[in-house]
Amino acid sequence: MSKVAEIITHEELLKHWQGHRNLTRRVIEVFPEEELFHFSIGGMRPFAGMVMELLGIAVPGLREIVTGKITELNEHFEHGNKKENLLKWWDESTVEIDALWAQIPTEKFHDTVLLFGRYQGTVSSSIFYFIDNEIHHRAQGYVYLRSLGIEPPFFWDRP
Amino acid sequence: MSKVAEIITHEELLKHWQGHRNLTRRVIEVFPEEELFHFSIGGMRPFAGMVMELLGIAVPGLREIVTGKITELNEHFEHGNKKENLLKWWDESTVEIDALWAQIPTEKFHDTVLLFGRYQGTVSSSIFYFIDNEIHHRAQGYVYLRSLGIEPPFFWDRP
Repeated sequence: MSKVAEIITHEELLKHWQGHRNLTRRVIEVFPEEELFHFSIGGMRPFAGMVMELLGIAVPGLREIVTGKITELNEHFEHGNKKENLLKWWDESTVEIDALWAQIPTEKFHDTVLLFGRYQGTVSSSIFYFIDNEIHHRAQGYVYLRSLGIEPPFFWDRP
Repeated sequence: MSKVAEIITHEELLKHWQGHRNLTRRVIEVFPEEELFHFSIGGMRPFAGMVMELLGIAVPGLREIVTGKITELNEHFEHGNKKENLLKWWDESTVEIDALWAQIPTEKFHDTVLLFGRYQGTVSSSIFYFIDNEIHHRAQGYVYLRSLGIEPPFFWDRP
């Protein structure tokens, strides 16, 4: 048996999330720009709308966990229908997530939080929500891509 | 600060997964039977095909972790295009997952496994894969439902 008596370590969960975020970035990249901002199925948002939700949650959510200071949830950014803007914000978030993560010790993961003044949970359940919600919306992007005849990156390929 | 110095506990991760599985069950339920087995977007599998993959992974994967005995991955079941069969297997799996989970102590989560003789990882990374893969395919079912004009259950509603 291994020496690590934990389900998942602090470092592993960050790597797990950033691996998912790397895959989501590649899904954004593979979308044609026009479809990224306008293609929809069944009245759902275009994939760019879902990406803005993910951007609006990840860093602001972690920042609230670190600072305890409530902010308003913002899922709208002035992207000008430019994929490069989404990717730039995505990459900036990647760096900020690493920096914020280092300020959330394992001992804090079972503290109660009320994120964006609305969503009650523990630090742990909130962060798993961020990750699960990203997987959920990215998978919807996969269907959009398949519907457009574009092959998405492999789901399991998360370096 | 809380007393639990872990990212997520053994009990919490089971509850987390079973919460996701409860939501997936409700997604299966809300599909009309015909579309569950035949509706497709972009050449993807019908949702029933994805559900069989989830059934083929969860209990057999956990059983390999418990017993160390390799089995072949099987994602095909004689469902006879009956939703009730999928739901029956789903519910049987729910009970079996609880029973198998109790046999995988936290100390085992960083052991190395080669599931189905093919997929290398730790117990931890494998189980997170099971959960993430379920979220991924269920979200594709959400797009199928939206495309059919059917409202899926809320993503965050996981009792």
